[in-house]
Amino acid sequence: MIYLDHAAATPLDPQVEESMRPFMAERFYNPSSLYTPARAIRTDIDNFRSKVGSLVGAKPSEIVFTAGASESISLAIGGVVRKHPEAEVLISAVEHSAVIESARGYASEVSIVPVDSRGTVRVEDIRDSITDNTCLISVGYVNSELGTVQPLRDISACVEEVREDRSKRGVDMPLLLHTDASAAAEYLNIDCHLLGVDLLTLNGAKIYGPKQSGVLFVSHGVELEPLIYGGGQERGLRSGSESPAAIVGFAKALEIAQTGYKQESKRQAPLQKLLTERLGTIEGAVINSTSKNRTPGIVNVSFPHVDGETLVHHLDANGVLAATGAACNASDDKPNHVLEAIGADKSTIQGSLRLSMGRQTSRDDIEQAVDIITNVVSKLRHR
Amino acid sequence: MIYLDHAAATPLDPQVEESMRPFMAERFYNPSSLYTPARAIRTDIDNFRSKVGSLVGAKPSEIVFTAGASESISLAIGGVVRKHPEAEVLISAVEHSAVIESARGYASEVSIVPVDSRGTVRVEDIRDSITDNTCLISVGYVNSELGTVQPLRDISACVEEVREDRSKRGVDMPLLLHTDASAAAEYLNIDCHLLGVDLLTLNGAKIYGPKQSGVLFVSHGVELEPLIYGGGQERGLRSGSESPAAIVGFAKALEIAQTGYKQESKRQAPLQKLLTERLGTIEGAVINSTSKNRTPGIVNVSFPHVDGETLVHHLDANGVLAATGAACNASDDKPNHVLEAIGADKSTIQGSLRLSMGRQTSRDDIEQAVDIITNVVSKLRHR
Repeated sequence: MIYLDHAAATPLDPQVEESMRPFMAERFYNPSSLYTPARAIRTDIDNFRSKVGSLVGAKPSEIVFTAGASESISLAIGGVVRKHPEAEVLISAVEHSAVIESARGYASEVSIVPVDSRGTVRVEDIRDSITDNTCLISVGYVNSELGTVQPLRDISACVEEVREDRSKRGVDMPLLLHTDASAAAEYLNIDCHLLGVDLLTLNGAKIYGPKQSGVLFVSHGVELEPLIYGGGQERGLRSGSESPAAIVGFAKALEIAQTGYKQESKRQAPLQKLLTERLGTIEGAVINSTSKNRTPGIVNVSFPHVDGETLVHHLDANGVLAATGAACNASDDKPNHVLEAIGADKSTIQGSLRLSMGRQTSRDDIEQAVDIITNVVSKLRHR
Repeated sequence: MIYLDHAAATPLDPQVEESMRPFMAERFYNPSSLYTPARAIRTDIDNFRSKVGSLVGAKPSEIVFTAGASESISLAIGGVVRKHPEAEVLISAVEHSAVIESARGYASEVSIVPVDSRGTVRVEDIRDSITDNTCLISVGYVNSELGTVQPLRDISACVEEVREDRSKRGVDMPLLLHTDASAAAEYLNIDCHLLGVDLLTLNGAKIYGPKQSGVLFVSHGVELEPLIYGGGQERGLRSGSESPAAIVGFAKALEIAQTGYKQESKRQAPLQKLLTERLGTIEGAVINSTSKNRTPGIVNVSFPHVDGETLVHHLDANGVLAATGAACNASDDKPNHVLEAIGADKSTIQGSLRLSMGRQTSRDDIEQAVDIITNVVSKLRHR
């Protein structure tokens, strides 16, 4: 089986699983309890928080452990908007559904900033869309469909300018920048202060860590209203007894990802090149992932007039596991908004395939996968 | 070490751990993906949902998997209130902090219904507190400090009467009943329809299941606004890629708890009696858990003029792990609102100790623990 859907899920790293094991059965105590073995777990959580903080250039107190990226994103957007219920949220046209739906769910007004044909947001377009009523901008660092890397530092510089201007003009509304960096942590440096973001989401499940583990970086001074209330864990921003296993697993996964991302990017880049080139030679193929500034994990290709879902099923039957980019979510039928946003036509969207590589993907996998895809596409075309 | 803090955390049941193992590393696929091994996980999740449904007398589509009880509670309260932002929420005076803080965080008006000296809410008091603007009542089934079981069926009958009356009078506001049954699932039948509740919270971490696993039962027809948005998982009420390990672990834990609760209750009842009697003979001891209708796991006792936190630390040093009931949460200094609500004075609250038994607790543990407590209290009194 050749697994080419790492953007959907990554296997648990054996080192991560190993790190979680003591917290599964043996060290089960509630970290808020007062006795020695519970306080030892509290100390460990503090240490994992420091470790995560140091990996993303943040103070430990800026790290909020959550139960996954959708929760982090909802907390970032809902948390800001619930403090400013009448304010506006600005998002790009290629955001993950968690960003789109959180913005729609919490904000009374949402503006969508378009992208170019490579999926890149232009800073000028963001600047033009900001009003004095905008409280939050949310732009994903790396697009999970195309791999496009957004010019986040330029965006944060723009945000800083607007803040200074607001301050001069006595406009009270804060302007905050959130980024969903779920698809970035495996390939890029994610130093929050270098990026200049106020809020940053990470997802354990996308970096060979435990599922439903995540982090929201919350820069000092940023005020959020929590979504989940209770015992006041995570500085009151995410109540509920912690899962130390999820926390240690996340920290270990992030450490491995951030220690190895340069080498792994270098290793995957020629595979991406090979995959893109070979897929490009299939008759009628359209490569959708064309940004020069993209991560090496993803190739998004379309075979117009082939049904993406049928293609995925036939690839499955032939031992290649991949995703169609046809639907917005695997479970619904809305056409993919990311491909729509880069201007793909209906038949290109319908016939799209997203291949995402991972740490185990070899050159041999890629060559075999291309042969299988070539055959399957040819068969489906001639049916 | 004698662990008497099962109300704070329970160890993972070996059968639960075993059930989770295949979903940790090997079966890591995203259940929303389209290929065979992913769809097999989707089928498994459907089956676990059916199993949980059948254990609580609900349809599978009424079960929402969450990342823990605080999230379930916040979703129940926030989910209803966000649909009716001007409406009022009614809670008892002995609710868990997740209920109190969610109500405060989401509702513009919160009414607190008092309890009697045994911690029981009187149905008449609830009826008297309901106004035409009340949209939600939240009363925990079993109090986690005292073990007091609330008359939930009487409360739901009262709610039903009010609904009928509202309907006759053309009052549009819905009236819903939520219960946090986290402390109940180990000791009582939790059939949602027999209890007559619209919303019910369960906590995997309190029934020897995985931490940050939980369920919210949402009766058909109840409309909630989600807190966590995204890919539309859990019928759109809790987005985010599922953790199949947490789901199977929760289902297995609930199955074990609900299969064994009668026998385990019968086993623990004489231990509770022994513990209560022997603690009662310590000079000055005040038993706080006095309800006739209580679960057999908990004994709450106070030693006035002894500091509860100091007591816990000395017990820890002598091999007994227990909780003080002095503070509302282990991590803050607010006096325990549950003991306040039953009319305990300051020094009784300050010197309180909550002992909570579990499946491994033996008669020998209880006898040893009582001896140690007797000695430690005596030493602390004579310092």
